[in-house]
Amino acid sequence: MTTTFSGVIPPVITPLADSGELDLDSLESLVKHLIDGGVNGLFVLGSSGEVAFLTDADRQRVVETAVRVAAGRVPVLAGVNETSTPRVIQQVRLVESGGADAIVATAPFYVLPNADEIDQHFRLVAASTDLPLLAYDVPVRVRTKLDIAMLVRLGTEGVIVGVKDSSGDDVGFRRLVLANRAAGSPLSLLTGHEVVADGALLAGADGVVPGLGNVDPHGYAQLVAAAQRGDWAEAKRMQDRLTELFEIVFQASGVSGEAGGVGAFKEALTHQGVIASGRMSPPIPRLEADVVSRITAIVDASQSDDSSIDAVRINDGV
Amino acid sequence: MTTTFSGVIPPVITPLADSGELDLDSLESLVKHLIDGGVNGLFVLGSSGEVAFLTDADRQRVVETAVRVAAGRVPVLAGVNETSTPRVIQQVRLVESGGADAIVATAPFYVLPNADEIDQHFRLVAASTDLPLLAYDVPVRVRTKLDIAMLVRLGTEGVIVGVKDSSGDDVGFRRLVLANRAAGSPLSLLTGHEVVADGALLAGADGVVPGLGNVDPHGYAQLVAAAQRGDWAEAKRMQDRLTELFEIVFQASGVSGEAGGVGAFKEALTHQGVIASGRMSPPIPRLEADVVSRITAIVDASQSDDSSIDAVRINDGV
Amino acid sequence: MTTTFSGVIPPVITPLADSGELDLDSLESLVKHLIDGGVNGLFVLGSSGEVAFLTDADRQRVVETAVRVAAGRVPVLAGVNETSTPRVIQQVRLVESGGADAIVATAPFYVLPNADEIDQHFRLVAASTDLPLLAYDVPVRVRTKLDIAMLVRLGTEGVIVGVKDSSGDDVGFRRLVLANRAAGSPLSLLTGHEVVADGALLAGADGVVPGLGNVDPHGYAQLVAAAQRGDWAEAKRMQDRLTELFEIVFQASGVSGEAGGVGAFKEALTHQGVIASGRMSPPIPRLEADVVSRITAIVDASQSDDSSIDAVRINDGV
Amino acid sequence: MTTTFSGVIPPVITPLADSGELDLDSLESLVKHLIDGGVNGLFVLGSSGEVAFLTDADRQRVVETAVRVAAGRVPVLAGVNETSTPRVIQQVRLVESGGADAIVATAPFYVLPNADEIDQHFRLVAASTDLPLLAYDVPVRVRTKLDIAMLVRLGTEGVIVGVKDSSGDDVGFRRLVLANRAAGSPLSLLTGHEVVADGALLAGADGVVPGLGNVDPHGYAQLVAAAQRGDWAEAKRMQDRLTELFEIVFQASGVSGEAGGVGAFKEALTHQGVIASGRMSPPIPRLEADVVSRITAIVDASQSDDSSIDAVRINDGV
Repeated sequence: MTTTFSGVIPPVITPLADSGELDLDSLESLVKHLIDGGVNGLFVLGSSGEVAFLTDADRQRVVETAVRVAAGRVPVLAGVNETSTPRVIQQVRLVESGGADAIVATAPFYVLPNADEIDQHFRLVAASTDLPLLAYDVPVRVRTKLDIAMLVRLGTEGVIVGVKDSSGDDVGFRRLVLANRAAGSPLSLLTGHEVVADGALLAGADGVVPGLGNVDPHGYAQLVAAAQRGDWAEAKRMQDRLTELFEIVFQASGVSGEAGGVGAFKEALTHQGVIASGRMSPPIPRLEADVVSRITAIVDASQSDDSSIDAVRINDGV
Repeated sequence: MTTTFSGVIPPVITPLADSGELDLDSLESLVKHLIDGGVNGLFVLGSSGEVAFLTDADRQRVVETAVRVAAGRVPVLAGVNETSTPRVIQQVRLVESGGADAIVATAPFYVLPNADEIDQHFRLVAASTDLPLLAYDVPVRVRTKLDIAMLVRLGTEGVIVGVKDSSGDDVGFRRLVLANRAAGSPLSLLTGHEVVADGALLAGADGVVPGLGNVDPHGYAQLVAAAQRGDWAEAKRMQDRLTELFEIVFQASGVSGEAGGVGAFKEALTHQGVIASGRMSPPIPRLEADVVSRITAIVDASQSDDSSIDAVRINDGV
Repeated sequence: MTTTFSGVIPPVITPLADSGELDLDSLESLVKHLIDGGVNGLFVLGSSGEVAFLTDADRQRVVETAVRVAAGRVPVLAGVNETSTPRVIQQVRLVESGGADAIVATAPFYVLPNADEIDQHFRLVAASTDLPLLAYDVPVRVRTKLDIAMLVRLGTEGVIVGVKDSSGDDVGFRRLVLANRAAGSPLSLLTGHEVVADGALLAGADGVVPGLGNVDPHGYAQLVAAAQRGDWAEAKRMQDRLTELFEIVFQASGVSGEAGGVGAFKEALTHQGVIASGRMSPPIPRLEADVVSRITAIVDASQSDDSSIDAVRINDGV
Repeated sequence: MTTTFSGVIPPVITPLADSGELDLDSLESLVKHLIDGGVNGLFVLGSSGEVAFLTDADRQRVVETAVRVAAGRVPVLAGVNETSTPRVIQQVRLVESGGADAIVATAPFYVLPNADEIDQHFRLVAASTDLPLLAYDVPVRVRTKLDIAMLVRLGTEGVIVGVKDSSGDDVGFRRLVLANRAAGSPLSLLTGHEVVADGALLAGADGVVPGLGNVDPHGYAQLVAAAQRGDWAEAKRMQDRLTELFEIVFQASGVSGEAGGVGAFKEALTHQGVIASGRMSPPIPRLEADVVSRITAIVDASQSDDSSIDAVRINDGV
């Protein structure tokens, strides 16, 4: 049996209490919010999940909580975020014990591997587990762009079952889609870029892993549904609305991408009443009050000017 | 009157004879091939036009020839490719005297300007001419990514009339489309990436500047036509075929992007009988024979397996 | 009491057995080799120590072994290599329990912090421990260049006691030396670049952290001694010889920097009989036999053609 | 006969009048200032000479003026700054007709050549002229780091006679020095980094091309003289003083490197009465008055606290 991943699989943010402690109640609320919104999977311990800030103990609690609340309704993918093969494999053990349904691994980072070593890395990680493995392509963090031919080869050989593409390289993604199709589509191809999901789906993506999907999971579910039925005008309309909502991540100036991006998602979710606090992990500060005001105004505008969407939500029983 | 630019505006390659001299007969043949293929404009002296290799005298002859052969049927946009404002303005004089209808300028390069200086650069270039100015965003060559807010501001103030986006940043392009729309659409937005034209058009691009459009202008004309009538499935089908054809630029290994990319376009056009030689400018070597064989095989396959397209071509009188 | 660090403090490589297991006997032998060679400190769990490949358990065993064998003769500095503040602080606990005398931390990586967040990161790490903290500037791995003014400020306020500069930015290092001097020299400034130690010491560096110092600790001890007595011609002569020896890291082609660099150090040490194997951590392969032959030939030539050095070694009782 | 280049060869800035026009009177004054200061050559039309901003006509006038005023006392090297081989060769003609004694060329830029194409570029440029050719390695502007083996090979084959290294890669420079020496020293090796000249000379550099040498040519002449007689403590002392003076380029904030660096040199020279204006080429603004005040204060402090230097200047007839 081949596991495939498609549709909306948001990279779940990790709620923290104002004290900085992990807030599992908020995580439970968030998982419910996402599943109610119609997502097709949950990706915990990704970059948006602040995985790089979480201790191993907290990482395990995040997986366990997501798995428990999801209760099999959607698969839980877990990041195994570490610098090298031996340390990644330790993370695999951790998320296995937490009950994850699949793992998501980057190339090694901090270390500077070449192409052969990256290929070998994925093979060794896959060999260490029975869980399906997705490759996560995020050169802005890892420095290495994953090679298209390598990805398709690893897919054909059963080493990986999918790719989460956050490379920002739409040309490369299109070529990957065609190369995968030519190889019999061994890979589920997911774009990590929340504002070009319509184009990526038109190109042939199987799904989207949108950080913004934490805030508006139903919007992405609708976008994907429109794409699946070939209604590209509607998909584009949904994407445009979500792209406007995405402006929440650009409201802060002079802060890091972590603070501006994940911080904005957390503030929006706090405003929505889904989680309890916009608190970030040290040394990332919480956003300033004026920034939060602009974020909440954008969130409110996105909801209020789109009554048809609310209607749909009601109709869907959400 | 505002000049707008849309549809298919290929960056016209510059044919050279085997001797290395400019081959104006081949350029004339190429311009006819493009106009017959249904393009909506010609962009000469772009990166694909080897502008950075051409002497000023040859640059002028290229513009003059394109303008003469186009004969007003489509506008001729000309690159004014230079390192700094004073030298760009000299190029503006050159292409004005050649009869260009619009100019396309990058940010300064080699020098390392900041955002304010780039803004001022475009203002000074625009002030030096009555021709409409498009900003060319190509950070892989220039190092600087043009700022979205600056572009929209320059559009609103009438400094620039459009943007050719070869930034490879599809997220930024989507945000630019929305910001331009919110400002009343002062800018014509053109993507330079030939394998994601369908998604860019779905997002709201006004047109495409495809290097591959030299080889298959009619394919791009059909793609744009499909998009304009909202037939996104057909647009995607056309794009997929063109993306497969684009593999010609990846056939050479161990060569520069100039040799592999523009060299492939020239070899394809030579194979099609449009131009006389695949010769490149020094120090770029011509592609090896085995690479050319693979390129021509891809070109032939692209044409042969798409009889409906040939039919359309015949119907169009091409 | 202020702890200062100066002289030769090699980043100790981590020997592995052919099986891939940690080889603590070889580590013990290596530590003796280094102390006998005249080094002034040991830096374990640095990049050259493959820290990014070691599990936490192995990291702790490395620190414990180095501390036990050093037995107070020289201080043991330990890297606390992790992506973010919370995870670095966990590593601080680990190396504290192993008995380290000081800790060495980079800016956060994988995450993309801004300048304020990096400043805060060092403050939080320092606040978590009584051990002296050195900042490790290695932008090729971490992506961020540490700011000169921040480093001097953190030194003046007692947050950090030194900097290991592997930035490759000799202009920045010179400015740091002068800024530190102007502030009363709160920082010990160590260069991580083994082939420019003479110039760095002339500029005012307090010491050097040379990966190549694993292979020829005595050469670096002599270089530093020559510099300290103002014999720059001799320092340069020593540096030139060591730079020629450093060519061992460039013998492999088509491999990663990890394989070529640390791999070469390990092979040289194996050839010298100091450690048992050139084995690297997965997924880094061991160097090919022909590369190893070239490396050992360079090592032999470096020793054989420099009889005066061997004489000195004998005289020094090494 | 082999031409060699050594000692102090400043990259001569290009004075502009307040109107923005080329100020040849100031250039004449500057050339006298430099020769009186004891420099061993003049490098006009380099990056510090704003070559990328100057029209061809102005470039020619700069060369002619420098050659006329130098009157054979020191050689005049001229940059042939262009994007590609054909355009560089046109610049060679221009500076030949202006009377230059040598040419300095970068790798192609804007275009993205590979290693073989860069090698061929230098061969074609050298073949186009009888003037000696130096390779200029400035990856921050050109994007490509010149390969050490290629440089030594081109030197051995007589294609180039020297290298101006502004790569900021001191490790690579040290390796280049040793590789050149092993090949019989075909190349004159000049560092472009003004604050590490002492270390570069200790390593074996033949000379220095310091932008700051416009402001304090005599300081660099003294530094080189101290190095040549082996007085490294004095060379370091001179370098430290010059490094403190170099802080003038860091006084402006929020401006480009062009404005902050070359602008500072121009303001210092204006303050010294050597040239008439700190005006920069469009779109680079002149520095703000408060920045200029800080610059002139640093210049004054550098001179006033070093009476021994003034004495030497008087003795030297400066």
